[in-house]
Amino acid sequence: MIDPRPANGTDGEDLRVTGAKAATIVAGHLAGLAARPVWQPVPAAERAWLTDQQLPEAGRALDDLLEDARTHVLPHPMGNGHPRFFGWVNSPPNPAGVLVEPLAAAFNPSCAGGDHAGPHLERAVVRWLAELVAFPHPPGGGLLTSGASMATVICLAAARQRAALADGWDAREEGLSGRPPMVLYVTEEGHSCLHKAAQLLGLGARHVRAVPVDAAYRMDVGALRAMVAEDLAAGLRPFCVAGSAGTVNSGAVDPLGEIADVAAEHGLWFHVDGAYGALGILADGAAPHYAGLDRADSLALDPHKWLGVPVGCGCALLRDPGAARAAFSLVPSYLIDDNAGELGWFAEYGPEQTRPFRALKTWATMSHLGRSGITSLVNHTAGLARRLAAMVEESADFELLAPVTTSITAFRYRPHPGDGLDTLNRAIPGAVQARGNAFLTGTRLGGSDALRACFLHPDTTEHDLAVLLDEIRLAAKTLRT
Amino acid sequence: MIDPRPANGTDGEDLRVTGAKAATIVAGHLAGLAARPVWQPVPAAERAWLTDQQLPEAGRALDDLLEDARTHVLPHPMGNGHPRFFGWVNSPPNPAGVLVEPLAAAFNPSCAGGDHAGPHLERAVVRWLAELVAFPHPPGGGLLTSGASMATVICLAAARQRAALADGWDAREEGLSGRPPMVLYVTEEGHSCLHKAAQLLGLGARHVRAVPVDAAYRMDVGALRAMVAEDLAAGLRPFCVAGSAGTVNSGAVDPLGEIADVAAEHGLWFHVDGAYGALGILADGAAPHYAGLDRADSLALDPHKWLGVPVGCGCALLRDPGAARAAFSLVPSYLIDDNAGELGWFAEYGPEQTRPFRALKTWATMSHLGRSGITSLVNHTAGLARRLAAMVEESADFELLAPVTTSITAFRYRPHPGDGLDTLNRAIPGAVQARGNAFLTGTRLGGSDALRACFLHPDTTEHDLAVLLDEIRLAAKTLRT
Ligand SMILES: Cc1ncc(COP(=O)(O)O)c(C=O)c1O
Ligand SMILES: Cc1ncc(COP(=O)(O)O)c(C=O)c1O
Repeated sequence: MIDPRPANGTDGEDLRVTGAKAATIVAGHLAGLAARPVWQPVPAAERAWLTDQQLPEAGRALDDLLEDARTHVLPHPMGNGHPRFFGWVNSPPNPAGVLVEPLAAAFNPSCAGGDHAGPHLERAVVRWLAELVAFPHPPGGGLLTSGASMATVICLAAARQRAALADGWDAREEGLSGRPPMVLYVTEEGHSCLHKAAQLLGLGARHVRAVPVDAAYRMDVGALRAMVAEDLAAGLRPFCVAGSAGTVNSGAVDPLGEIADVAAEHGLWFHVDGAYGALGILADGAAPHYAGLDRADSLALDPHKWLGVPVGCGCALLRDPGAARAAFSLVPSYLIDDNAGELGWFAEYGPEQTRPFRALKTWATMSHLGRSGITSLVNHTAGLARRLAAMVEESADFELLAPVTTSITAFRYRPHPGDGLDTLNRAIPGAVQARGNAFLTGTRLGGSDALRACFLHPDTTEHDLAVLLDEIRLAAKTLRT
Repeated sequence: MIDPRPANGTDGEDLRVTGAKAATIVAGHLAGLAARPVWQPVPAAERAWLTDQQLPEAGRALDDLLEDARTHVLPHPMGNGHPRFFGWVNSPPNPAGVLVEPLAAAFNPSCAGGDHAGPHLERAVVRWLAELVAFPHPPGGGLLTSGASMATVICLAAARQRAALADGWDAREEGLSGRPPMVLYVTEEGHSCLHKAAQLLGLGARHVRAVPVDAAYRMDVGALRAMVAEDLAAGLRPFCVAGSAGTVNSGAVDPLGEIADVAAEHGLWFHVDGAYGALGILADGAAPHYAGLDRADSLALDPHKWLGVPVGCGCALLRDPGAARAAFSLVPSYLIDDNAGELGWFAEYGPEQTRPFRALKTWATMSHLGRSGITSLVNHTAGLARRLAAMVEESADFELLAPVTTSITAFRYRPHPGDGLDTLNRAIPGAVQARGNAFLTGTRLGGSDALRACFLHPDTTEHDLAVLLDEIRLAAKTLRT
């Protein structure tokens, strides 16, 4: 049936022309980033432009909007595109991911499920992610999410439901009222998203145990064992232990194999937070640190972190896909799909109904890098973290605070022995950021204020490490005057 | 500091050239949609291509990936770009939203918070959404989400915490174990995401009451009152009532003002699910149906539905921003931002830590339409639903099943009186979809199998309505032979 009409409120020509212009803007933006300050505060007038504008009465042309975005949005980045951005865990965008985003938006499916390219491609990329880190992958064993926070919610909800069913009740049907508290174990270094997920699920912050860590910020498994025993004796219900494969503070990887043993002994769900660090398994010589990862019941892994897939893209991987489906599947009559097949719809495996086409940018990024490119990226960035650690150790005015396992270096500035180092190091990140030549963030580690640099950018060089240390020294000088 | 280097693993020229090609592909795709089948099953070989491919060892060029996406992804759409897609609630993408997606991906911030264009622009678009539907909007009173399912989780989590605090305990700290069950009220026509959210939050499916509806599929507020009284008498804790402003089955809008009265009497949180239908308030003469919307404590509203913002984009609006923050704020030491200002970070208002730049496509779409364009779109599509209802009523072989309030027409095919109509109508959607000339979906309504057509596409014409009815007749013929 032929029925020509304009494409959704614009003609194709307009979108073609402005789209080409957008490509030029985007390419110029990415190519020019390294020569600009990493980050600068948004000037008040620009902030007001962004925040206080009014919805126009009449519609505005595509070209005007593009021009606005070019002049008022792109000049005020977070900084993570720059090779000297070392803050938090935020990567630069892979160009292939950028390239396909307009296709994903034009295609605009809901990847809730159904028979279209979206869900079919999602099956491939989820499998690729599992294969990359050698996690078991039965069909249906995972889904893309907006990030690891949501992946964690999915995994812990599956764990909660499995524990309840094992005890002969149904957490989804009954709710948690009137049942013994369920206890989750994470280390003091476990990511806040684990705490947020436990609170969201109604488990209660007080039922999340902060297991102590060893000198390398890895879980003390002896302490875990003792805590589980104590909780059992108190009539609580230990249900899940979450190990970290790459903590945000120091990049530490917990002793996953030993944790798996404890989980197996006590019938706990074993979750691994590999949001940032799971890919570290690909680095030369790193595999032994990750032994036991493949024994987890679930793994959170963020394509929008080390892989550089544009945000937002997380992934929940599950050893037993049935566990996620048991925790979420709820198919109303208007969504019953007789052709859904054995695996059903993705929406049955998590809280989202409409789901964006996250698979396309993930597929493009992973394909553009290839397995070899991903391995090189991991090796390059992990090498930078080790190199920075060596430089820190060689410098009399810096102190290394943790061993480097992934691509994070935790250290502090110590221009002099003695007091005031916490205050100084607490102030340094803001002062470095304000200078615009590098961006790092701080944290608390082992009771001290610490600096941490996270390496994710393929274009970061050894020279940038020297710049970073000098920037810290210079920033500290401004603080002490 | 000048330090030129290649832009993140590619040179800018490559991305510029392939980006321009992507724009041509995208424009051609959108312009050509109407002349192609609305939807067709993905052929087995293509499905295998999508799902079974292997991660390549070596990286692949941008141009190859683009070509793959053009030939293997775009030909297999879900259908919602086509003007004769009437299924579920899935809109075509607004071209301005498509245009800016590569900028958002290249900019690639985390909108968790911080001082960059992302969070600042999000403040504007969230306010615009509230203003459009005349919902009260204090600063900080909302955030973008991946969709209404997540917006609903946020709103109900805020409701849960407020109820607990009112009773003198802290749901986040203690968890739900040992506390009286909290009860949520929704109608039989309430969206499944309300049930999923209640289950996720640990409230239990059995504590979600399905309030009966009147003949127009609106909440029976007398029944609500009786149910609340009964639950109170039984020692349960009624905590929230969710009204619908546009149900997915028939587009019904609950009597929001009366529900607000009951909520006020009993101290219930009043949530409104306006994921699809809140914008209907803009249609000529529609405002009276929405009276009371502005009394809600929270409102879920999906920019990726009626507005046509590319998926995923939902929005949670809250009368008291403090309620969302009280339910989610958890700021670990590595994220403490002394410059966060009074409102803090968006990540404190919901479960997501890293948050994509959903604001840019929302800003672009709303600005491209303008207030007048949004109003026209709503009027046009609401008019189509009323027109279809009239055509159904004028046709001896069709039957209208519900009044039209928003842009959904619920009806059924009744070529003959008597038996077998449920079986027939249950089979029709699949048969219509398979023919490729229109796409509608079915549901159960008032105990019968029903057809429903949802209008969201600006290019749908009255002629398309006639095509739809004919397609149903033709599809039904193939079923009866
Ligand atoms: C170790 C770790 N786990 C979990 C998260 C949460 O991931 P997301 O921000 O994608 O929700 C992060 C990063 O923020 C992280 O670094
Ligand atoms: C009325 C209604 N509420 C809630 C939802 C859930 O929204 P989302 O799919 O964006 O999560 C939908 C659509 O799926 C809906 O139509």
